Amino acid sequence: MNVDIQRLMGEIERLATFSDAPAPAVTRVLYTPTDLAARAYLKSLFAEADLELREDALGNLFARWVGAEPDLPAVGTGSHTDAIPHAGRYDGVVGVLGGLEAIRALQAARFRPRRSIELLMFTSEEPTRFGIGCLGSRALCGAWTAEMLGRLRDSEGKSLDQARTEAGFSGGLETVRLPENYYSAFVELHIEQGPLLEQENLPLGIVTAIAAPASLIVRLSGQGGHAGTVLMPDRRDALLAGAEIALEVDRAARASGAPDTVGTTGIFKVHPGAINSIPSRVELGIDIRDIDGSRRDAVVSRVVAAVGEICERRGIGYEIEWMNADPPAQSGEEVVRALEASAQELGLPYRKMVSRAYHDSLFMARLCPTAMLFIPCKNGWSHRPDEYASPEHIEQGVRVLARTLARLAE
Amino acid sequence: MNVDIQRLMGEIERLATFSDAPAPAVTRVLYTPTDLAARAYLKSLFAEADLELREDALGNLFARWVGAEPDLPAVGTGSHTDAIPHAGRYDGVVGVLGGLEAIRALQAARFRPRRSIELLMFTSEEPTRFGIGCLGSRALCGAWTAEMLGRLRDSEGKSLDQARTEAGFSGGLETVRLPENYYSAFVELHIEQGPLLEQENLPLGIVTAIAAPASLIVRLSGQGGHAGTVLMPDRRDALLAGAEIALEVDRAARASGAPDTVGTTGIFKVHPGAINSIPSRVELGIDIRDIDGSRRDAVVSRVVAAVGEICERRGIGYEIEWMNADPPAQSGEEVVRALEASAQELGLPYRKMVSRAYHDSLFMARLCPTAMLFIPCKNGWSHRPDEYASPEHIEQGVRVLARTLARLAE
Repeated sequence: MNVDIQRLMGEIERLATFSDAPAPAVTRVLYTPTDLAARAYLKSLFAEADLELREDALGNLFARWVGAEPDLPAVGTGSHTDAIPHAGRYDGVVGVLGGLEAIRALQAARFRPRRSIELLMFTSEEPTRFGIGCLGSRALCGAWTAEMLGRLRDSEGKSLDQARTEAGFSGGLETVRLPENYYSAFVELHIEQGPLLEQENLPLGIVTAIAAPASLIVRLSGQGGHAGTVLMPDRRDALLAGAEIALEVDRAARASGAPDTVGTTGIFKVHPGAINSIPSRVELGIDIRDIDGSRRDAVVSRVVAAVGEICERRGIGYEIEWMNADPPAQSGEEVVRALEASAQELGLPYRKMVSRAYHDSLFMARLCPTAMLFIPCKNGWSHRPDEYASPEHIEQGVRVLARTLARLAE
Repeated sequence: MNVDIQRLMGEIERLATFSDAPAPAVTRVLYTPTDLAARAYLKSLFAEADLELREDALGNLFARWVGAEPDLPAVGTGSHTDAIPHAGRYDGVVGVLGGLEAIRALQAARFRPRRSIELLMFTSEEPTRFGIGCLGSRALCGAWTAEMLGRLRDSEGKSLDQARTEAGFSGGLETVRLPENYYSAFVELHIEQGPLLEQENLPLGIVTAIAAPASLIVRLSGQGGHAGTVLMPDRRDALLAGAEIALEVDRAARASGAPDTVGTTGIFKVHPGAINSIPSRVELGIDIRDIDGSRRDAVVSRVVAAVGEICERRGIGYEIEWMNADPPAQSGEEVVRALEASAQELGLPYRKMVSRAYHDSLFMARLCPTAMLFIPCKNGWSHRPDEYASPEHIEQGVRVLARTLARLAE
């Protein structure tokens, strides 16, 4: 089986040029002209490979290699191509273009699948625009209903429904959910986004469970005023309450008792944001994760209690909006076994591991047996312009993916 | 002398409709289409009052009532009309439209000034766009040279020079500086932006000194990464350092030993600003003020030391950019005396006071004897949509201003 790594790296490089940030950064946000241009490029590649294309009402993109028994549930693979502001070129992309290359390698080897093999590009794995990650896979598995999707608005107040319509995606949102038995198995190739494989000098990780974040938006409202004239005892400064909360998120995650707990305040928006004006409102976006759901939830509870205490002491109003608090997912044993068998056939060492990052596979696991295949990335970095995975590791990942798809589709 | 307060309040109301935020908030940022539309409205009013108009290369707008001896240095009055995001309608505006009404009242009373009386609308008293307040008056008095102005860029990287040119203001920046003996005196009517006059139930404050802020931008750079996969001990989170610094600014101002010290972190910008991304860069805008220059500078030193200590402990890089650290200004005694005499003639009580807010008069004081006249504002609030000064207080301020201008121009 021949993986054309040159062609694949060329396509990854080309896809990175669809970006709203200057290279090497990649910014590709849901339904922007840049996102739509990238999708058009991907569709042209999928069509060249003779895959049957379908888009749903949210923009999830399906590219099917029809099997000998097309009525059987298909084998799915794929990932996402949206990118948070100032991210890199591999996160998600390796699973989409790598999945395409795996299919092309099987085609070139004259493999004839019994089940259809379907490449799936998920809409909006990143939460950038609507504040919620894995939008496409949440809808595909029914975790989010059409009615829940209908309530989403972006930071400029535009509804998801209007945004998708303007981007050319029509049809009822209730049609997005996939029927049972649509897939017999799903497998996602992805960069690790962590340092373990590199540290242990291993080319592959086979994911046995996916951690899930609790994420919340905390909105603080104090009292604004002129930075020169309101004396200190008379202030109710929303930024100072936000600063205390961010420090407490960090402290609570570190105090959980386990190294697997992480807590981050990634959003901190200040209103009005002028140097001579006391901040009247602050919005914090907080993300807390663990591979253990109850330990994660204990940290979340501590943070929520601290928000109440800090705001009461400072005379600050607050509201908390829960973005998500999904349970972790276990991988499907048969998919893990197929990945292990494929790696062993190729003589490639691997470790079993937990994914600390959040993936569409978390939701695909509710539909069908699902697992993930990780390849190393430099220093464990991701979500930054210098995110990097080597061509050698990508090629090895695609080889294992191709064999696994063949095995699952037989 | 007849002040037409109805007309004046109507003009203040009309000017507030030139805003990029919905009413009652006012947002009017330098050289935006909204700023330019507001200027056109003001010029039409000034022209109706038969004032001679002139604009300089920065957009400082001069409207002159030519006196009987036009070669004598003129008497100046005026203020600004730009407004920070989500501000109110009185800050600055009362001194521009109130100055116009004072001139119209003198004209209607058939007063004939010996010296010219000139209304001056300053460009960009607020630091919103270029990070530095009192841009127009700094240039008028030569505190900032053309070369310093030439280095300014807004947050999108556009130079002041390009922005002013696009707004229609041409000519060399070196022509903005006013000659010596241009003005014989300057007086600025303004809302207090503090609570003292209201608390003491006084209609007028005569300003004997103006405090000046030290303002600085602190840029922090840590290490970004995925919020799920970078474990806590491996992080260098720029936001957490910024949070500690903001809390220290507050602590240092409160610990100065005097109630007159204030410290504010009004800007706190986070990069990349996504909920699942560790903040790699943060920019803080810090403003520290006091009526005592050395006490202010001691607080600034404590904050700068804390920035170094916090960043070293957290492995965060930093740079500090000084926006300004101007010395306080003393009012001109003859202008103070003219204000006092005018208030006494009208039987209006007043107090002498220090301005804690920053004004163009701080820089005009370098050119000529200068003082300010304050009127009360509700709860001392300003820089917020519910900023309010009563028509009665505005009328009393304009009456005193008109008499003072007449006295100084005789």
